[in-house]
Amino acid sequence: MPTRHYTTAVGDPAMHVEEGADTGGYVGVAGALLDAVKARVGDLVEVRRPDGSAADRGLLLPHHEFSGEDVVVLKLENGYNVGVAVTAADAVHVVTRAVPRVPPLREIPRTEGRPAVAVIGTGGTIASYVDYRTGAVHPALTADELAFSVPGLADRYNLRAEALFSVHSEDLFPHHWADIARAAARHLEQGAAGVVVPHGTDTMGITAAGLSFMLGALSGPVVLVGSQRSSDRPSSDATENLEEACLVATQDLGEVVVAMHAGTSDGAVAVHRGTRVRKMHTSARWAFKSVNSEPIAIVSGTDVSWRGEHRARAPRTALDDRVEDRVVLLQVYPGFDPELVHHSARRARGIVLAGTGLGHMGAHAFGAVREAVGRGVVVVITSQCLYGATNMNIYSNGRDLLRQGVVPLGDMLPETAFAKLCCMLGRSQDPDEVRRMMLEPLAGEAVDRRAVGGEDR
Amino acid sequence: MPTRHYTTAVGDPAMHVEEGADTGGYVGVAGALLDAVKARVGDLVEVRRPDGSAADRGLLLPHHEFSGEDVVVLKLENGYNVGVAVTAADAVHVVTRAVPRVPPLREIPRTEGRPAVAVIGTGGTIASYVDYRTGAVHPALTADELAFSVPGLADRYNLRAEALFSVHSEDLFPHHWADIARAAARHLEQGAAGVVVPHGTDTMGITAAGLSFMLGALSGPVVLVGSQRSSDRPSSDATENLEEACLVATQDLGEVVVAMHAGTSDGAVAVHRGTRVRKMHTSARWAFKSVNSEPIAIVSGTDVSWRGEHRARAPRTALDDRVEDRVVLLQVYPGFDPELVHHSARRARGIVLAGTGLGHMGAHAFGAVREAVGRGVVVVITSQCLYGATNMNIYSNGRDLLRQGVVPLGDMLPETAFAKLCCMLGRSQDPDEVRRMMLEPLAGEAVDRRAVGGEDR
Repeated sequence: MPTRHYTTAVGDPAMHVEEGADTGGYVGVAGALLDAVKARVGDLVEVRRPDGSAADRGLLLPHHEFSGEDVVVLKLENGYNVGVAVTAADAVHVVTRAVPRVPPLREIPRTEGRPAVAVIGTGGTIASYVDYRTGAVHPALTADELAFSVPGLADRYNLRAEALFSVHSEDLFPHHWADIARAAARHLEQGAAGVVVPHGTDTMGITAAGLSFMLGALSGPVVLVGSQRSSDRPSSDATENLEEACLVATQDLGEVVVAMHAGTSDGAVAVHRGTRVRKMHTSARWAFKSVNSEPIAIVSGTDVSWRGEHRARAPRTALDDRVEDRVVLLQVYPGFDPELVHHSARRARGIVLAGTGLGHMGAHAFGAVREAVGRGVVVVITSQCLYGATNMNIYSNGRDLLRQGVVPLGDMLPETAFAKLCCMLGRSQDPDEVRRMMLEPLAGEAVDRRAVGGEDR
Repeated sequence: MPTRHYTTAVGDPAMHVEEGADTGGYVGVAGALLDAVKARVGDLVEVRRPDGSAADRGLLLPHHEFSGEDVVVLKLENGYNVGVAVTAADAVHVVTRAVPRVPPLREIPRTEGRPAVAVIGTGGTIASYVDYRTGAVHPALTADELAFSVPGLADRYNLRAEALFSVHSEDLFPHHWADIARAAARHLEQGAAGVVVPHGTDTMGITAAGLSFMLGALSGPVVLVGSQRSSDRPSSDATENLEEACLVATQDLGEVVVAMHAGTSDGAVAVHRGTRVRKMHTSARWAFKSVNSEPIAIVSGTDVSWRGEHRARAPRTALDDRVEDRVVLLQVYPGFDPELVHHSARRARGIVLAGTGLGHMGAHAFGAVREAVGRGVVVVITSQCLYGATNMNIYSNGRDLLRQGVVPLGDMLPETAFAKLCCMLGRSQDPDEVRRMMLEPLAGEAVDRRAVGGEDR
């Protein structure tokens, strides 16, 4: 059977299929039951037992290569795929039939008086389609498909859509941040009120941090947005996140932020500072949290409620897209292998340690760290606790580690430290200068904890 | 100046100094001001400006080798050290003078009818002393000093104290878990109602996970306990945590748990399952959180409020102290260096990946993973999100990664996966058997998410 891709439009709960919808390659018992009701892949079907009870209900997926001939594969409402064993005594009922896919509008109408919002597509769940042969989600929708898939969005904004690339966010390298930063700066220079960047959620927080350092001043907001549930699922957060991201893009804000669901229910989207945000749950819609900081704003419908200090729009956007990919992030663990530092020092210009507690690592690894620093590698340390700040002066181990030349980064997230180190190493070949820049706050990435006081922040 | 160590007793907010308290090696302007009032290291002093205003107040620390002769070093009430620049026009006022240290009782009285609680000392802040020359905290108190430093504890329990070792927890290796597990099993076999393990907080959660796998059945609780604030600070949590840990040790519980402050105020200690607990803040007293699970109990005074299912005491304790130190934990990041896997595969028998999102990594690293698996290395994957579970079937990248032979561990913490892999590799040389054991729930370390349903857990 050839690979068939059935795509769904973002924000549309109905299933759309391309022409030529097939029966999914079912044979045997399952094939007979499905053929009896002319069920097609993408139909919402119910498997019923001889007594009339429903065994399972879901979107029909194609026959799975590892399943027997007596198994019907369904995508359940919760998004998961399940194989339902059937016998000739069972029956299949088609609840709703899939409708053919309507090609999205590609023209971009311009209307006087509406704010111009640029949408830069990078891929991810928010712009993904489901391969109903395997049940897996692939990146696919272009930025304009995405932008115009949300009803009404084009009525409120003059949308400009650009498909920069379409990759899973876990496949992004630091140099991809530079591509996004350049595109965002260009759109702002060309008059966009703000920029929306649909992005896979896996590394969206880290990209946001990288962009925060590359875009030192912004004439408008750069809003990264994703979705935790693909758009074929009723609980998808794609539409609401994208709508609110566009609203945030028109505000008086000169920062890189992430806009994602704030809580478990619909109706509130949190705006997180790009250097403070982290994906803290694999699947929940509220996965993104500001760490060691509060969200800048909560957006609900058309209401933007500002919660924290934020930078206003700057007269011009300042771009510094230099970036170094050769940076390694290492988490410390019991018996941490010093060879990880030793080996990385030969391949990378920077090492970010996610130390234990206040910024510690086993003393057995100090020699490797000292050697790396001696080779001109910039070694910085953060805390794997994530919340709270490094303080190397409390314990003798921390003080000893400091003497190896490690730079402690206070309450900066390990991933933000990684993004910053990539950017700073792009700007200078001088390790001392890079160390100095790492300690200089540039985009709200760290607070001098001693200056703040309080212990339980 | 020779190194002088001034120790404080746990739970006593007053400052104790050994005999022969010195002036801290101050000379010049600072020395003159301090000598004028006979200030000694450990005294609570206030530096006053010519107009009588107080510049700073804190415990006098010795002269710091890097400070000028015009700097007085104080330990502030919040625990941090500060250098105060002074001139001859300033003055020092001694608020309270340090009192000499009272040596702790070392005899262990036994009284009929009191439960026997074993205290196994391993080091950490809870058993630490402050080096007032440098202001750093060192591990020092022996287990019996520690046990008897809490007023009244010896009146309620027959305490048995053993100083197993005294190291910073970041210096512990997996094989140290075996030492603790053996000692705990021995005390339980010898009739202890429960075992309390004072431990440094940095890696306490990981040790708790290791002990959970090594002690497959327990005739009594093994309670790890630490403190986030050293005992010389008014906000120290050492006493309350230790008192409640002893209470937990007498309960009908056959698990390894961590007992630490539950919230920002005193009065409630949370009991976390050893395989589910993580240090989530560098300095707050409520740093320890159960992840993907609730605390087993909340203890308040003498009240134990059970919150979740827990194992009762077993008739006998079962110990399996086999452990493999050659396990590497690697966090995935943008542009992750595949050489980290490649190189580790030559040195380690197991690799734990903390993947992005649902358990992903960049496709450019798949080859290195496949090669590692081919060499017989057991490669498992968890999520760096910490909350939520891996699900490799949603995205094509995840499915491709599965095909490389990676074992996804559901909602298991990366650090718990590390501890489990160390233990399972200690039990078997067969990678297939280890992979099977990694998926078999042994100590509440993971829940089969598909069985649970719900998406927002």
